[in-house]
Amino acid sequence: MAHGVIAYSSDTVVAVVDPDHAGKRVRDVLPYLGSDAPIVASIDDGLAFAPTSLLVGIAPAGGKLPEDFRAAIRAALRARLEIVSGLHAMLNDDPEFVALANEHDTRIWDLRLPPAAPLFSGAAWDVKAKIVLTVGSDAAVGKMTASLELTRAARQRGVDAAFVPTGQIGIAIAGWGTAIDRVVADFAPGAAEQLVLEGEHRGHDLLFLEGQGGINNPAFAPVTLALLYGGAPDALVLVHAVERTRIEDYDVPILSYRALIRTYEALCATVKPARVVGIALNTRGCDDERARAEIERARTETGLPCDDLVRNGPHAFYDAIAPALAKTEVLHA
Amino acid sequence: MAHGVIAYSSDTVVAVVDPDHAGKRVRDVLPYLGSDAPIVASIDDGLAFAPTSLLVGIAPAGGKLPEDFRAAIRAALRARLEIVSGLHAMLNDDPEFVALANEHDTRIWDLRLPPAAPLFSGAAWDVKAKIVLTVGSDAAVGKMTASLELTRAARQRGVDAAFVPTGQIGIAIAGWGTAIDRVVADFAPGAAEQLVLEGEHRGHDLLFLEGQGGINNPAFAPVTLALLYGGAPDALVLVHAVERTRIEDYDVPILSYRALIRTYEALCATVKPARVVGIALNTRGCDDERARAEIERARTETGLPCDDLVRNGPHAFYDAIAPALAKTEVLHA
Repeated sequence: MAHGVIAYSSDTVVAVVDPDHAGKRVRDVLPYLGSDAPIVASIDDGLAFAPTSLLVGIAPAGGKLPEDFRAAIRAALRARLEIVSGLHAMLNDDPEFVALANEHDTRIWDLRLPPAAPLFSGAAWDVKAKIVLTVGSDAAVGKMTASLELTRAARQRGVDAAFVPTGQIGIAIAGWGTAIDRVVADFAPGAAEQLVLEGEHRGHDLLFLEGQGGINNPAFAPVTLALLYGGAPDALVLVHAVERTRIEDYDVPILSYRALIRTYEALCATVKPARVVGIALNTRGCDDERARAEIERARTETGLPCDDLVRNGPHAFYDAIAPALAKTEVLHA
Repeated sequence: MAHGVIAYSSDTVVAVVDPDHAGKRVRDVLPYLGSDAPIVASIDDGLAFAPTSLLVGIAPAGGKLPEDFRAAIRAALRARLEIVSGLHAMLNDDPEFVALANEHDTRIWDLRLPPAAPLFSGAAWDVKAKIVLTVGSDAAVGKMTASLELTRAARQRGVDAAFVPTGQIGIAIAGWGTAIDRVVADFAPGAAEQLVLEGEHRGHDLLFLEGQGGINNPAFAPVTLALLYGGAPDALVLVHAVERTRIEDYDVPILSYRALIRTYEALCATVKPARVVGIALNTRGCDDERARAEIERARTETGLPCDDLVRNGPHAFYDAIAPALAKTEVLHA
């Protein structure tokens, strides 16, 4: 959560609270985030940098607030900071935090609190903007990052593209969106559809819809499917972290590239067809040689454009998939 | 909703409120429900039959309360009846109904209000009871009925089988269960898992887990998948209503038997393998000859045991699939 917001948010991160690394800068600990923000030991130390908000920078499975975060949130509320949280546990349901927010005339923004969503209507099938959904080999492999990088690349090519956030980190970054995983299951595809309609309403021509979970993640696959059907994509970009061999937290193997492509395309084909047009690889942890080899292996196994959009930048990959995105117009005919 | 409860609930339906058919009996209007309950024009007329509860007998898509039901609910509360509702709209959130319930010392049971569910843990994979999930060509094709009929057949064969309810109608019938479609999407597989663990905890050897939705229903497929993964089935029974050719409310074709089997089995295979062991057909609306032909066509196309469990009773079908259920023990090895 913290990493994603530091890397991509348009809001400035003025300081990071982390006692274990206090005194350093973000760049010293996580060079790839490209941030010189100071790391401090406490909220009180952080106030010297004139923050307006405290982001609860974690996204644990199950979404509960760790007990040892409570003191920091109390201190931030007393300093009149806005609290921004992406947890399932709604801080606005916590009487102590609500009382403090009222007393100090500030507010709590629970990113994951979804709006009331209707049932899926089918209106997303008529959206004229092209919709590109990132689909993953698992949760937390880099789908949001790939969608953000592709949005950046498309914009630099002069295309009116937008990132469509579907999770709490994306919402913190872009300032709008719905955490689909927090929506009542019956209405999850409808909530995904509303986001696509909102993207069209904003006048964009190309929507990079942030994917969630993975189609064989036993906990999160229903959210994946809600986006696959409710988001009505025209094209899919498959995302995989090459170091991942098993589904996070479960004794379930990650599928091969070909099995993933077959599974996602076969499901789409039963409702609205969409093809996988490229593979965005996350090679973090690999040296350059291994990263090159993994990218080459994915290309050979699938015949698709494959690249690491962070390591190598998104432009070559975007240019490689752009013709396939243009072709998806026929799906609307 | 009303039909399912009349047909299967262990509670007695003493009267049905329906002004359009007042004066008749249920059997006159819906012979296959096998009920002699009188149909009356109003709650007041129904009170003569000494009811203890009013069931809101509808399950509309989206789950809102029709305005013209409000007067009947008010009248029932004033007569101290318990109100039982399976709507998404929680009657316990309605200040007028809550005030009336308090005033008249009765209560409202919102069947669909789910308990707090944890994330899926994988504990369902270790359940020793055999788990048979009904999977459908679409929503509302007869999955609950098939699960109930199979439970009845297994019990008559001396097997300690139980029906595991996952929707509001099943909960009204069996008195326990969770409406999986009402659970927050992230926790829907966990809620399905909890039901299976509860079935095992109750000491049963064979669990007929009620399926929901359909794998290419664009609105309800996430709930289907939550049961397919979270319920950790050992075997699947495919259910199809032969008159259905398109997904209800959407311009999406129903898949062929073979495509349905392939899709469900392929998804299961990525997490925990389970095979389709038979097809329960719903031939309502067909004459006997057409019903026989449809059953024969399904058998020919799939090579599996196929039958209409209501028209022909569940025993022959249960006996035909029982050997395959026994074989699923190897999956636990």
